[in-house]
Amino acid sequence: MTEKTIAVIKQAIHTIENYPIDGVMFRDITGILENAEAFQATIDLLKDKFENQGFTKIVGTEARGFLFGAPLACAMGIGFVPVRKPGKLPRATYAQSYQLEYGQDTLEIHQDALVKEDKVLIVDDLLATGGTIEATTKLIQKLGANPHSAAFVISLPDLGGEEKLSQLDLNVYSILQFEGE
Amino acid sequence: MTEKTIAVIKQAIHTIENYPIDGVMFRDITGILENAEAFQATIDLLKDKFENQGFTKIVGTEARGFLFGAPLACAMGIGFVPVRKPGKLPRATYAQSYQLEYGQDTLEIHQDALVKEDKVLIVDDLLATGGTIEATTKLIQKLGANPHSAAFVISLPDLGGEEKLSQLDLNVYSILQFEGE
Repeated sequence: MTEKTIAVIKQAIHTIENYPIDGVMFRDITGILENAEAFQATIDLLKDKFENQGFTKIVGTEARGFLFGAPLACAMGIGFVPVRKPGKLPRATYAQSYQLEYGQDTLEIHQDALVKEDKVLIVDDLLATGGTIEATTKLIQKLGANPHSAAFVISLPDLGGEEKLSQLDLNVYSILQFEGE
Repeated sequence: MTEKTIAVIKQAIHTIENYPIDGVMFRDITGILENAEAFQATIDLLKDKFENQGFTKIVGTEARGFLFGAPLACAMGIGFVPVRKPGKLPRATYAQSYQLEYGQDTLEIHQDALVKEDKVLIVDDLLATGGTIEATTKLIQKLGANPHSAAFVISLPDLGGEEKLSQLDLNVYSILQFEGE
């Protein structure tokens, strides 16, 4: 991982001030996807970090987790398991609810998507409070598999997600950290 | 493209009868994603079909279009542009509505995601009636780019999508066709 690679990825991120509400600096990862060099650098960097460690599946959460998780699974030569919103997966599922700022939401996983021998890498674009990743971790545990690590393009450490996920015994890695916001 | 490759992909598809409603045979592509050999074969096959033809961007529609479009963009070394449901893209967007069986829905694209020199490959998991891909094609045209081709893992020709997209001057390709349903 070189400084130059990180700079290419960082420069491709758009920052939108006061979106979706006043006072929030929104980090928009679509600029990474649109930029072939930055997109490839992101996937290569995550591959270098996690290959040859026995991971057997990547799990990604709808919808932005698909954007980095599916290419990384392909690059690492392992399978990809989608975690989706209710009613989107057609076979038998397990569900897990989690708290939002106002109200709650639910995620689902196919019951046969993982086996207990699976060592899982969770992938998402951005780690904020960690609510969806905590729910995803619980779904992986319901299937008896090992939710070993979680990888993000961006982490916002001030929002507490890294601490929350560490308490679940997940190894947490992020390419970029934006602090003080 | 070998018969064996096609067979690996086909065997990984789950068919769920009478889902989501009576009389429908639902083709579930999550089995392809979970199976590393089938997933890699799918991306390799699409890459072989479309590389070295001057495509500059892949456009994929939320959420299942991300699952194959993003890995293919990475494998082809070109950028990926997401088309999303309303309110999900943070920068200035164009919107396009389309008809559902009951009611209508809307898709959005970032206004600066493509330029007029872009030759675009649209990627999705399954072509049925073609409504979302027609809307996606119109969004690409609003940006002045060329929506040249559309690629699918599965096509259901009896539902009219292939004909609809051909009338838009899109070249349509699918790995597998399921007819008579």
